[in-house]
Amino acid sequence: MSKPYVRLDKTQAAVLLVDHQAGLLSLVRDIEPDKFKNNVLALADLAKYFKLPTILTTSFESGPNGPLVPELKDLFPDAPYIARPGNINAWDNEDFVKAVKATGKKQLIIAGVVTEVCVAFPALSALEEGFDVFVVADASGTFNEVTRDAAWRRMEAAGAQMMTWFGVACELHRDWRNDIEGLAALFSNHIPDYRNLITAYSTLTSKK
Amino acid sequence: MSKPYVRLDKTQAAVLLVDHQAGLLSLVRDIEPDKFKNNVLALADLAKYFKLPTILTTSFESGPNGPLVPELKDLFPDAPYIARPGNINAWDNEDFVKAVKATGKKQLIIAGVVTEVCVAFPALSALEEGFDVFVVADASGTFNEVTRDAAWRRMEAAGAQMMTWFGVACELHRDWRNDIEGLAALFSNHIPDYRNLITAYSTLTSKK
Amino acid sequence: MSKPYVRLDKTQAAVLLVDHQAGLLSLVRDIEPDKFKNNVLALADLAKYFKLPTILTTSFESGPNGPLVPELKDLFPDAPYIARPGNINAWDNEDFVKAVKATGKKQLIIAGVVTEVCVAFPALSALEEGFDVFVVADASGTFNEVTRDAAWRRMEAAGAQMMTWFGVACELHRDWRNDIEGLAALFSNHIPDYRNLITAYSTLTSKK
Amino acid sequence: MSKPYVRLDKTQAAVLLVDHQAGLLSLVRDIEPDKFKNNVLALADLAKYFKLPTILTTSFESGPNGPLVPELKDLFPDAPYIARPGNINAWDNEDFVKAVKATGKKQLIIAGVVTEVCVAFPALSALEEGFDVFVVADASGTFNEVTRDAAWRRMEAAGAQMMTWFGVACELHRDWRNDIEGLAALFSNHIPDYRNLITAYSTLTSKK
Amino acid sequence: MSKPYVRLDKTQAAVLLVDHQAGLLSLVRDIEPDKFKNNVLALADLAKYFKLPTILTTSFESGPNGPLVPELKDLFPDAPYIARPGNINAWDNEDFVKAVKATGKKQLIIAGVVTEVCVAFPALSALEEGFDVFVVADASGTFNEVTRDAAWRRMEAAGAQMMTWFGVACELHRDWRNDIEGLAALFSNHIPDYRNLITAYSTLTSKK
Amino acid sequence: MSKPYVRLDKTQAAVLLVDHQAGLLSLVRDIEPDKFKNNVLALADLAKYFKLPTILTTSFESGPNGPLVPELKDLFPDAPYIARPGNINAWDNEDFVKAVKATGKKQLIIAGVVTEVCVAFPALSALEEGFDVFVVADASGTFNEVTRDAAWRRMEAAGAQMMTWFGVACELHRDWRNDIEGLAALFSNHIPDYRNLITAYSTLTSKK
Amino acid sequence: MSKPYVRLDKTQAAVLLVDHQAGLLSLVRDIEPDKFKNNVLALADLAKYFKLPTILTTSFESGPNGPLVPELKDLFPDAPYIARPGNINAWDNEDFVKAVKATGKKQLIIAGVVTEVCVAFPALSALEEGFDVFVVADASGTFNEVTRDAAWRRMEAAGAQMMTWFGVACELHRDWRNDIEGLAALFSNHIPDYRNLITAYSTLTSKK
Amino acid sequence: MSKPYVRLDKTQAAVLLVDHQAGLLSLVRDIEPDKFKNNVLALADLAKYFKLPTILTTSFESGPNGPLVPELKDLFPDAPYIARPGNINAWDNEDFVKAVKATGKKQLIIAGVVTEVCVAFPALSALEEGFDVFVVADASGTFNEVTRDAAWRRMEAAGAQMMTWFGVACELHRDWRNDIEGLAALFSNHIPDYRNLITAYSTLTSKK
Repeated sequence: MSKPYVRLDKTQAAVLLVDHQAGLLSLVRDIEPDKFKNNVLALADLAKYFKLPTILTTSFESGPNGPLVPELKDLFPDAPYIARPGNINAWDNEDFVKAVKATGKKQLIIAGVVTEVCVAFPALSALEEGFDVFVVADASGTFNEVTRDAAWRRMEAAGAQMMTWFGVACELHRDWRNDIEGLAALFSNHIPDYRNLITAYSTLTSKK
Repeated sequence: MSKPYVRLDKTQAAVLLVDHQAGLLSLVRDIEPDKFKNNVLALADLAKYFKLPTILTTSFESGPNGPLVPELKDLFPDAPYIARPGNINAWDNEDFVKAVKATGKKQLIIAGVVTEVCVAFPALSALEEGFDVFVVADASGTFNEVTRDAAWRRMEAAGAQMMTWFGVACELHRDWRNDIEGLAALFSNHIPDYRNLITAYSTLTSKK
Repeated sequence: MSKPYVRLDKTQAAVLLVDHQAGLLSLVRDIEPDKFKNNVLALADLAKYFKLPTILTTSFESGPNGPLVPELKDLFPDAPYIARPGNINAWDNEDFVKAVKATGKKQLIIAGVVTEVCVAFPALSALEEGFDVFVVADASGTFNEVTRDAAWRRMEAAGAQMMTWFGVACELHRDWRNDIEGLAALFSNHIPDYRNLITAYSTLTSKK
Repeated sequence: MSKPYVRLDKTQAAVLLVDHQAGLLSLVRDIEPDKFKNNVLALADLAKYFKLPTILTTSFESGPNGPLVPELKDLFPDAPYIARPGNINAWDNEDFVKAVKATGKKQLIIAGVVTEVCVAFPALSALEEGFDVFVVADASGTFNEVTRDAAWRRMEAAGAQMMTWFGVACELHRDWRNDIEGLAALFSNHIPDYRNLITAYSTLTSKK
Repeated sequence: MSKPYVRLDKTQAAVLLVDHQAGLLSLVRDIEPDKFKNNVLALADLAKYFKLPTILTTSFESGPNGPLVPELKDLFPDAPYIARPGNINAWDNEDFVKAVKATGKKQLIIAGVVTEVCVAFPALSALEEGFDVFVVADASGTFNEVTRDAAWRRMEAAGAQMMTWFGVACELHRDWRNDIEGLAALFSNHIPDYRNLITAYSTLTSKK
Repeated sequence: MSKPYVRLDKTQAAVLLVDHQAGLLSLVRDIEPDKFKNNVLALADLAKYFKLPTILTTSFESGPNGPLVPELKDLFPDAPYIARPGNINAWDNEDFVKAVKATGKKQLIIAGVVTEVCVAFPALSALEEGFDVFVVADASGTFNEVTRDAAWRRMEAAGAQMMTWFGVACELHRDWRNDIEGLAALFSNHIPDYRNLITAYSTLTSKK
Repeated sequence: MSKPYVRLDKTQAAVLLVDHQAGLLSLVRDIEPDKFKNNVLALADLAKYFKLPTILTTSFESGPNGPLVPELKDLFPDAPYIARPGNINAWDNEDFVKAVKATGKKQLIIAGVVTEVCVAFPALSALEEGFDVFVVADASGTFNEVTRDAAWRRMEAAGAQMMTWFGVACELHRDWRNDIEGLAALFSNHIPDYRNLITAYSTLTSKK
Repeated sequence: MSKPYVRLDKTQAAVLLVDHQAGLLSLVRDIEPDKFKNNVLALADLAKYFKLPTILTTSFESGPNGPLVPELKDLFPDAPYIARPGNINAWDNEDFVKAVKATGKKQLIIAGVVTEVCVAFPALSALEEGFDVFVVADASGTFNEVTRDAAWRRMEAAGAQMMTWFGVACELHRDWRNDIEGLAALFSNHIPDYRNLITAYSTLTSKK
């Protein structure tokens, strides 16, 4: 086993957030809503924190699928925003692919709703074109566990790497010493157990 | 079946938040951390919103149980705060009982960590003294489902009413017309699915 | 143990369908959507089949809660339909209570969304006024299992009888001989396993 | 707490097996089929072993509900067998009630398919007439956990005692010394883990 | 990773529905019956909608396995229908293979009951002959999760792509603009949450 | 609601450990073995710590049920030990009842294997004789969740209080100040999360 | 995808039953005992039915692991029986490998207890020597789901095919017409739902 | 399938225990705490028992992550202990890699907290450098099942072998005759069911 470890690198990575729309989110039932909301915002926050180029896209947002959730719009006011008029696979949309290629990055971090369509289709297309694809599994959601499992397997078989927002953050950061407070703030805002560790630690050490 | 329906009334109710401490929270495993954090803060927000007298208490907070989570301290800076030096049942602490009785309220809304001790013990004591007790089940946490079930059954058998933060908010509010925006904001901040309904609705109606 | 068995009787029963609205349904996560839709329609169909007076009500339907699902409107075009302007507990609405009392029935079969509010509040109020209350547990939905459990326990403690649509249908029908085809059609339309039994049975017996 | 413990007594008890029919069994999904089959046969075997009067009944067995499973017919060739022409609640059938009363027993052990109808209805009727009712929960099955929970709660609230076949066997037997081999055989045939204990024990002790 | 993405194409695909028979369906316990029925009919409806050549086959349908469910017969009155006299693997039946090859399609979309036999065997045979195989995981059912997992792994290891009916529909449709109403109708009929989005959307926009 | 709160009191309580035998333990499947072992030993340790009179009993231990687990024998070398020759309900054994009564305690804390027999039977008998019964739910085990639920409901209906070892310890101790180190040691030995809190706390405070 | 489909063939296959011992079976907790017992016996019955050479082996059976379960000994009185004196991996035992090779078969069907050791080790060794290995997943058991998953993945990565007893039976039989009664009897004895189909079918057709 | 079986060999293997720290352990929620503690200590005990070179490492242990759990420090007082000042991937720390290489072993057995970071990152790095990597799945923990699954799949795709502590012990030991008492003691201390088998066995055989 000696093929090189394809490791996320903050100078090489871009983030694609696909179809986190107010209507479509009501379809997500393989992950509890409070947890899912937290995971999506954690991914967005880390994209911001690591200054990764980020691309937003939506499907048919003037219809029942609904608008992009406002939190994402607010976090990335200047990001490319491709409201696809009809293409289901975002990679079928020329503007989207142009925006991706304009980042000049080879590593694509993808999350979206629903997993087997909005995530899997562009992931498979990007792999075919030679990109390294990292799926953020816990910031992607779908109808149920059976649907999720099938989607994961199809992407994996094609070479996608399955990750989670926490793993992505850690692999990008590499070393706590690069910025202890920044990473700790990210974790504190999105991992209640970690926030508690920090609270207890700070209280005890500030007493000294 | 004709005994009167004991219904929460915002002029009659007080809120007791028992031992939501940074250390003790690591023991809670019957409910997922993101959801639990949200539920506790939702209960705190509704106490604030309905201007219910609220009492904070902690157990042995200078030791491993850790400090009260800062969000609760910040939300209720002027609330009675009883840091119990050792009593496990908050009701065994005279200051706590005095603070409860000083509210002049007969309906006690209780939540805490862990359910079978920090919630159940004062709930049973308060019932014995003739209070109406409403346990906020989803803002209380413990080791596992077996532990939770045993705790619920003991409290119920003694006459406690099992509720959740959403039910408490609705029973206190009575009528949307009392304040549509206020209640909608509470739900939007703590129920992602409800926030999505509001986002989709606002987007469509603002286009008109 | 000798208190009388309070048994559903088709001459004594009315059905209350509370807040099955397009928006609120996205909050239901304690029961899978295909199953829940089927259960609600099965209850509606049985109400129709047994000619039970049925009352429809909605909460604030011009806002994000959304309209009543069209299937229910279509099934009961002439039923009393109380679009509550703001009361959360349907029993706080005079028109609703009048409509209930106008049926002249003493047995109330209730289902709705969400269980701990839209079902539990009117159930508790009706019990207080001396009605016999039968909650259709599987045609009522809410946020999660913890919420559901708390709601069931509160209603039960007040004297509500927990049932399901199938139990309601069977207790009302009493004897297959009253109408074999009608009951079989109801089951065939709403229980896939039962439909398969009928398919296999019919195929074999028609060959004779 | 000093009301008498209503304890199963082999001289006072009869067994009612309700609607374990080949068709209806396909509806049972709250318990895995291999386990359910084992539990029903275990209950039948213990009825036989303790020589309890046993009554078989079926609902509309010439139709899609299908015939009684042959194992039960074979085990109780001389038992009263009431093929109800249409009554859903077995207690509405005069022949069934006569057969029950003819046993002269006051303790009724009931199991059947499906729990909320075929078990709950006669259980509630029998309780109303003053019988002591013991529901064998694990030899009764229904559509899903929600349905089962609702059924258990309704029966319990009316005074039924929830048991399982193992508890029934132990409460009837009272003392191993009454017949060690008989009880051990019953357990060995229906509890794989117990059979393994016996196998290991016998192998070791027979070597001595 | 640069092997081409094998993507469903409506001009290249055929659908094989294997052994959805009234008797065999009682064996399916890895997926809830209401959901499973919906998924199978959704797959059938999409086959119809995209005008994909569809082939029906059954195993030994005059015996206990029972007849094909009538809904499928009714939807595809003119489809090749191969009632296999005994072959367990449909691919062992010459008429079936001829029918498949007569479609001239290279992409086979397969679903059936039970997954590890009626789906897996022809899937493995078709892969061996060079077809691209897409398994519709949620329209295929079997005894339990262990059985399902083993079946999925065997097919995947041989090169089958795991999908679900929703993913199949989306990958075939490519672009909403090809027919907005048609796709929306398919989703509305088979995804209750999506129907609710459409209901809420239509109500609000029709008011304008 | 004003009946007195029956509260565990270390001067009034005795512990009954029923049938924790090496063979019978292989039947326990409603709780994971590592957790169950920990809970039983935690209960034993707290009995020791609070110096509660403790009674050991076994059923037919020379046969396949096997010997009492050695840890319990070692912890209570001088406790009454009743190896019942055959009585299934320990309360049917005169020596056992004598030993219980000889403690002079009115509050009985019971745990054992299996829950619906070895715990439930003596619990029901003791309640009938006027004892207060506290069942330690998580130090009692049985075949599966259905069996456990039925057992809990039967005991509860008869007036038993459902508790867990942690709740028992806390209710007996009343106040941390009675012995901080003793209680902390009990928790540290049996709650890994609590041990971690202590480890982190001690490390930080010892650095000061 | 054109590698040949490695298909079970009754002239090429042998069955290896590894360490189904009375003691070791108490370790199996990833599958319910009634179901597991049924699956193991179903595999044994099919080995018998298809006259596959079968090899029995045990590990250290004079110690706590205990004797082979008597049912297997009784079914295969003349099969090679290798009581390994100490080798954990059966393939490390020369007699076992000799017995396997003496069958002259290239396809090995393996099941045992516990999955990650007694099944995985010989499976990996046999694959290394060029055998085709078919693991009967549901007749193999282990400590929990995490353990099972890890074991499956390791075997799969090495090329083992994951199957279940039902899939094995169907792939070996090929065509119902080879022996309808024999296969039906096998299914009837080990699949309660299938037995019910046969019962219902026979009852209806025998009436003609 | 003829690639060689890469089998653990006690002369070739080293153990890496990564970040089992008092703070980080509060993040582990995919495995119950009592079971997880047992698994980690079982792995440590087997490392000791087989005299495998063992390396301890921690991440930022003076901060909220907290100190290494004292049990591990006590078991390996002389092991290389690399308290990483900031590197998240242990393999990025030169001292750690030096310590690994100094063992001269090619087979690395890795466990840690959390799985997708502290285990996966060094596992991927070690695989890239040509080591054989064996992940001890049940002595590694993380936030939830989704996170765990993604981590397992990424490591597996890169060539890691998934194992459990029991499998590791068995594969290293090879033959019970190498040391019956030693292996039995390891199992008895960490597998309650196995301890019970030994207790029952010893009791019966010592009576002879």
